[in-house]
Amino acid sequence: MKARIDFIASGGVTSPAGFYAGATYAGIKKKAVTGLDLAILYSEMPCAAAALFTTNKIKAAPVLLSQEHLKTERAAAVIVNSGCANACTGAQGLADARETASIVATNIGINTEDVVVASTGVIGQPLPMGLMKAGIGRIVLSREAGHDFAKAIMTTDTVPKETAVTVRDGGVSFSIGGVAKGAGMIHPNLATMLAFVTTDAVVEPDFLKTALREAADISFDMLSIDGDTSTNDTLLLMANGKAGNAPVSAGGDLASAFQQALNEVCIYLAKAIARDGEGATKLIEVTVSGAASLADARLAARTVVSSPLVKTAVHGGDPNWGRVIAAVGRSGAAIEEAKTDLYIGNICLFKAGRPLNDNQEKAAAALKKSEIPIEVRLNLDEGTATAWGCDLSAEYVAINSEYMT
Amino acid sequence: MKARIDFIASGGVTSPAGFYAGATYAGIKKKAVTGLDLAILYSEMPCAAAALFTTNKIKAAPVLLSQEHLKTERAAAVIVNSGCANACTGAQGLADARETASIVATNIGINTEDVVVASTGVIGQPLPMGLMKAGIGRIVLSREAGHDFAKAIMTTDTVPKETAVTVRDGGVSFSIGGVAKGAGMIHPNLATMLAFVTTDAVVEPDFLKTALREAADISFDMLSIDGDTSTNDTLLLMANGKAGNAPVSAGGDLASAFQQALNEVCIYLAKAIARDGEGATKLIEVTVSGAASLADARLAARTVVSSPLVKTAVHGGDPNWGRVIAAVGRSGAAIEEAKTDLYIGNICLFKAGRPLNDNQEKAAAALKKSEIPIEVRLNLDEGTATAWGCDLSAEYVAINSEYMT
Repeated sequence: MKARIDFIASGGVTSPAGFYAGATYAGIKKKAVTGLDLAILYSEMPCAAAALFTTNKIKAAPVLLSQEHLKTERAAAVIVNSGCANACTGAQGLADARETASIVATNIGINTEDVVVASTGVIGQPLPMGLMKAGIGRIVLSREAGHDFAKAIMTTDTVPKETAVTVRDGGVSFSIGGVAKGAGMIHPNLATMLAFVTTDAVVEPDFLKTALREAADISFDMLSIDGDTSTNDTLLLMANGKAGNAPVSAGGDLASAFQQALNEVCIYLAKAIARDGEGATKLIEVTVSGAASLADARLAARTVVSSPLVKTAVHGGDPNWGRVIAAVGRSGAAIEEAKTDLYIGNICLFKAGRPLNDNQEKAAAALKKSEIPIEVRLNLDEGTATAWGCDLSAEYVAINSEYMT
Repeated sequence: MKARIDFIASGGVTSPAGFYAGATYAGIKKKAVTGLDLAILYSEMPCAAAALFTTNKIKAAPVLLSQEHLKTERAAAVIVNSGCANACTGAQGLADARETASIVATNIGINTEDVVVASTGVIGQPLPMGLMKAGIGRIVLSREAGHDFAKAIMTTDTVPKETAVTVRDGGVSFSIGGVAKGAGMIHPNLATMLAFVTTDAVVEPDFLKTALREAADISFDMLSIDGDTSTNDTLLLMANGKAGNAPVSAGGDLASAFQQALNEVCIYLAKAIARDGEGATKLIEVTVSGAASLADARLAARTVVSSPLVKTAVHGGDPNWGRVIAAVGRSGAAIEEAKTDLYIGNICLFKAGRPLNDNQEKAAAALKKSEIPIEVRLNLDEGTATAWGCDLSAEYVAINSEYMT
């Protein structure tokens, strides 16, 4: 029997059993639009944990500390602040991250090593430890506060990003929930963002790791807002085992259902980040099929979705398909002009190397929608991949011209 | 004795002896701001010629034809149109480019194979051959019309880009002139642009090739406007030998003076393209020194100058040095945070891994200027490179949202 996966209405990171959250306004952000800038996620049972971090060679202090703590492959709580990235802050930054974890551990009554720390905001400013300490002391944990957690981790995001699913497979039932923040400094290789995914399933630690890698490969890694990879990227998956199922393991009965549900949660969050990119008015979904390899398909899809000229054309509702072809051509992926087909908004504009410019008006109409599918069929072999991004607007420039000052 | 290199006042592509140009409005562009959209460059003696073309796998018809013609390493004329790229136009596009060369050859009385063809503009539209033919017939060649040539090849450029130098070395004197168009779809690996460089020096063909590669490496290849590489990039160097010097050759007496002068012309044009990038208000010059290798320095400099977040910060006058460090960190170049120094507008903001945030105000003042030097000292080894680009403004979005329609 096929597993059944259902989205939970108003689901979030505390939808799986045994997870709690809480948030407060600590004053780290001068203006916190959501009224919150510091949050804790907590599991009543210690979790098997897997994580992926930024590929940037400059890693923020919280990333360095969390990598150290997660060597145990165990976590019980996450503390996140927005407004200050605690990056490029040297030894003091690392000491501050360590102290943050320690305060949280003491307050909740868990080991410091079981606390993951994440920060997002301006680079190069010291973490205001007085505000952090006072803030942590004010946080009250509850089963409902997953939504507050989602709001507290936002920076230039305009909407919180959260979801959850229940999985029923045979007699077993468990949930997966997730929350993310995005908006800027978002680019493949773990798109720049914070994302926390929780599950009450019992999951074998090695499988947890490979499942997270697989889900990230087809979700957050296929996401670009602006080509800049941040110093603070963190994707954390925590499984607390409260559902009491036989452990999900590679090749086991529940592996495929768990993977599929995890993929859906991660893709949902990645698309939510793309849709809410800084200044974005449209979600762009680029599918490259028929590529010479999977690697080529991924490369081409990510290059098209990252192209400033494709992004501005979509913004202006201009079916300038030449920019899409040019982006594939520069991506490094194999392409033969005479074999290539191209669709914008499901309208074919280039077929086997010939322009179909009579379809421009139909494509222009399709570009008025808020979700823009772009499909490039290379017709070489079977490589297929999908990437997500957003249009580039004057608002992006406005947001980023005056972010720090 | 050291060679003397002097810029020629109002110099251009026809400053070297024996070069002629002419331009007209053929009607290919609906609105030609400069009143011109078709131009010819011609040498009264056939030239030794070297060229570099786009690395994009989708190459426009004029690029394919010019590559074919330049197998002879000889050229006598160049025909350039703006307003239509003749790219993704299949067999008809190639036939149109071939016919264009043939008409020019017949009109001037030279071999078709000695004509280089270049096009710039929208991708996927057929070249209007009726307008091309009529236009070519109207073009009158003169020694003065280098300036008209510079205007006719512009697309979204706001100013023509041209320069020339005279070189005096021992008893020998010769000139090098150059012209370029840029503005958008500009990214390293032969930045997306057309550039034509002329000299009346006698230059041995093999040296001409290596000299052009060296000059491009430190000029056009270190230039980025928007990360998109076009299908039509062409950099052509023509030497007609009219100066009558003993051939410039590798290791010969004039090699170093020729190379230096060629570098200066190419860097001048590359900087002019950066300064006039679509929507640009500031020139950004990024120097990375002390890198582990030259390759690392080039990679890091190009990544910083291409970063949308660095570009928007410069636009807004925001000394957000964290974005510069983050860009170096994601570039792939080796970096040790604790050894790194960073300067914006010659103001130090990060020294040996420590923020100097007290200098922010001074840096903000420096960012009000129109040329913004950014320097990253990695203090690892001796790799040094400089890259050029421009800020990212709302005007860039406006220009590219409505380019085609």
